[in-house]
Amino acid sequence: MAKFSFGETMHLDDSLNTYLDAHFDTVVEDLRQWLHIPSISTLPEHLGDVAEAARWAVRRLTDIGFPEAAVVETSGHPLVLAKWVVDPSQPTLLIYGHYDVQPVDPLDQWLSPPFEATIRDGYIYGRGASDDKGQIVLVLAALEAWAKVAGGPPINITLLLEGEEEAGGEAVARFVSDHLNLLAADTVLICDTHMVSAQQPSLIVGLRGILCAELTIRGAKSDLHSGGYGGIAPNPLHALCLLLARLKGEDGRINIAPLAARIPQAEPAERRFWQEDPLDITKKLLEEMGVGEMVGENEYPPLERVGIRPTLEVHGICGGFTGAGSKTVIPAEATAKISMRLSAGLDPEEVYSWLEEAARAALPRGYRLTVRNLHGGKGISISADQAAIKAAGEAVAAIFATRPVLMREGGSIPIAAQLHELLQVPVVLLGFGLPDDAVHAPNERFSLDQLKKGMKTIALYLGLLRQR
Amino acid sequence: MAKFSFGETMHLDDSLNTYLDAHFDTVVEDLRQWLHIPSISTLPEHLGDVAEAARWAVRRLTDIGFPEAAVVETSGHPLVLAKWVVDPSQPTLLIYGHYDVQPVDPLDQWLSPPFEATIRDGYIYGRGASDDKGQIVLVLAALEAWAKVAGGPPINITLLLEGEEEAGGEAVARFVSDHLNLLAADTVLICDTHMVSAQQPSLIVGLRGILCAELTIRGAKSDLHSGGYGGIAPNPLHALCLLLARLKGEDGRINIAPLAARIPQAEPAERRFWQEDPLDITKKLLEEMGVGEMVGENEYPPLERVGIRPTLEVHGICGGFTGAGSKTVIPAEATAKISMRLSAGLDPEEVYSWLEEAARAALPRGYRLTVRNLHGGKGISISADQAAIKAAGEAVAAIFATRPVLMREGGSIPIAAQLHELLQVPVVLLGFGLPDDAVHAPNERFSLDQLKKGMKTIALYLGLLRQR
Repeated sequence: MAKFSFGETMHLDDSLNTYLDAHFDTVVEDLRQWLHIPSISTLPEHLGDVAEAARWAVRRLTDIGFPEAAVVETSGHPLVLAKWVVDPSQPTLLIYGHYDVQPVDPLDQWLSPPFEATIRDGYIYGRGASDDKGQIVLVLAALEAWAKVAGGPPINITLLLEGEEEAGGEAVARFVSDHLNLLAADTVLICDTHMVSAQQPSLIVGLRGILCAELTIRGAKSDLHSGGYGGIAPNPLHALCLLLARLKGEDGRINIAPLAARIPQAEPAERRFWQEDPLDITKKLLEEMGVGEMVGENEYPPLERVGIRPTLEVHGICGGFTGAGSKTVIPAEATAKISMRLSAGLDPEEVYSWLEEAARAALPRGYRLTVRNLHGGKGISISADQAAIKAAGEAVAAIFATRPVLMREGGSIPIAAQLHELLQVPVVLLGFGLPDDAVHAPNERFSLDQLKKGMKTIALYLGLLRQR
Repeated sequence: MAKFSFGETMHLDDSLNTYLDAHFDTVVEDLRQWLHIPSISTLPEHLGDVAEAARWAVRRLTDIGFPEAAVVETSGHPLVLAKWVVDPSQPTLLIYGHYDVQPVDPLDQWLSPPFEATIRDGYIYGRGASDDKGQIVLVLAALEAWAKVAGGPPINITLLLEGEEEAGGEAVARFVSDHLNLLAADTVLICDTHMVSAQQPSLIVGLRGILCAELTIRGAKSDLHSGGYGGIAPNPLHALCLLLARLKGEDGRINIAPLAARIPQAEPAERRFWQEDPLDITKKLLEEMGVGEMVGENEYPPLERVGIRPTLEVHGICGGFTGAGSKTVIPAEATAKISMRLSAGLDPEEVYSWLEEAARAALPRGYRLTVRNLHGGKGISISADQAAIKAAGEAVAAIFATRPVLMREGGSIPIAAQLHELLQVPVVLLGFGLPDDAVHAPNERFSLDQLKKGMKTIALYLGLLRQR
């Protein structure tokens, strides 16, 4: 992909730079505090913690100087909404982030407790450090610097934080649809992505969509003993294996017929970037995974596979006996938790109907199947030829002293597609995570150097958006 | 299969019959007490309960009048050994049973607590009611009746109870090998099987062997986020699905090449019984399972499939995320708990080596596989043309007023094959469970009518073994 080219290099204002350097320890301490709140949105027992994390954000926004900052109750986890209108003639930036985090199992693989943030070797470790509390904290630090140095941000700010990004994001999706007037903006900034490496900054111009589903297969009316019934009884666990092996083969091909025809073709420049892989990202991906070879559709370049190709992954299989030792039970039912990542342009609802049909066709004889659509979100493909994206590139280049590349990220931020569709404004995906941050895995971390560069980049970017 | 034919019908001695009728409530109360002890042998947290269940048995045996009864410590769970030598010129019966029970999950499907035995509609409900505490209690009741009515059993008795039948039975297997002299007997009686129905008693002349194993597949060095790595990452859960679908297809065929050639052929009479199914057992099996059709090798009669054909079942799949909600994790490793039931004559150690080889051959590219042999036991095939078996048939016919049929049971009691091999004496598999006892499943139960008939059958059988 093309790098940005500029007439002259931008600089962060000295007083902002000095303020951010001087207060870095306070920023880290803020993050530590927030990371202490186990705001796991998918686990009912953490309901109160999610709410507490929202209140923490409101207190912090109020401290910074936001005239309006409030917890917004929803039918799910609460949202945080804050507004700072400095000059109606200036543009408005809508900043989105999420304060909920993923579950932490397997807990025994964490080297330090996931909710006692720990600093080791230049990283802060803890669930949510990179995804996404650390990246919100750096935005807040940039806003605070502007508030202290200049009395307020250089443009109007609307800030929207949600508490169920990791749980489907239904509440924020409904809120955005119902309250578009509150969110009217000229640009959307989402700080929840990662860069190629600490040496090679990047801007994200594509995200995959997502569909999470459950497949439940039922056999006998109750659990059976494999002694008395083994050989004649339906075994839903085995049926799930057969079904999932049919839905996706060893070659990584997803056997959902309508899907293949609807995968978008990328531009020649992007295809060339994937094939040539000038940044040697494939090698880095292999190292991160600790494997000698990749698994899946090996006829496509790895960058294309994570950037734009759809996936079908099984994340867990429930049913039967999974404790220590053995128990020769044939369970009455078993459930597979699966997800699909979707090329931008694919509608999760439509893909769900294809998935359901393909799963029914793949069901072995003698079983009943229930398919559940847990949640979905669209992907997004962003044209880099927009002023707001170019300004982000300039800010990154100035702070990182390296021009950013344009990349697609394989993850999903459904709100990005939704805000783009509804507001019809550029969405800037400017994140500071690194590939080895272990998001969603044990020992999640965030680089303190990225944290510092991130807050300076955002501080500079806010200034660049101001109309002169 | 042939039924027994007799010259004259046997009768249980009146005084034994009267004693057993009069003390039936006490027998039920005994069973309730024993069922209160949650002696789950596979779960480390129940170590103390297993030991307590052993001590309970010793107290009971002492109360009955056994001159020798003791807990025998092993490297695993303890054994119970009791001896009552009444007359060295009389034969010795070695009675085996197990006082450990299966785990109880899924707990929420129990209508009454598994360890608070409850009587409803002529059944006693609780974990272990049928498998095997209830069946030991009825043997003890028969022995007690003889002790009270006649001062002792009519023959010499050795009683051996183990506490890890549901956990592989390693301790008892070692004890039997090491202490054959203590166990010398003329006949072995095992009361841990079930009958065709309450109306149709049966004797068991065959049991399948068993092999329990774990297959662990490893992919990346740590858990990965399906956003960043989905499409290139190994997914051990999916690899397990592919592998298990290859090891056994929808047609129920087990793809372990050496196995097919080593499945024994049954006698023509037994094949005819399987094909004709004169007792309509197939229909009952369908009803018990609550399904409209069977799954598996439909080209074989159902009775052959549960009686003698080998199986391969998956009992649980560990790895990834199985909590509420969704988590798009690609786990670093996943484990399948599987078992195989083995035709009599197959050696579990040899089958394990075939399984391991077949699993390695079925492993998709890009993964590492570890196979673990958890435990195994041989099956047994018993000739009905032995006096000890015939006498058991006579006792059953007298008490049930119906001649028993000879059946194979699909379950596994490895100690049966071991005692037969080492002692070279007949093994009598005379059990009183019913097919709908829900052994190993929620709401396990034992029919109070079977309990009563069972203790009378055993009381009569003990007398029939006495040499005149």
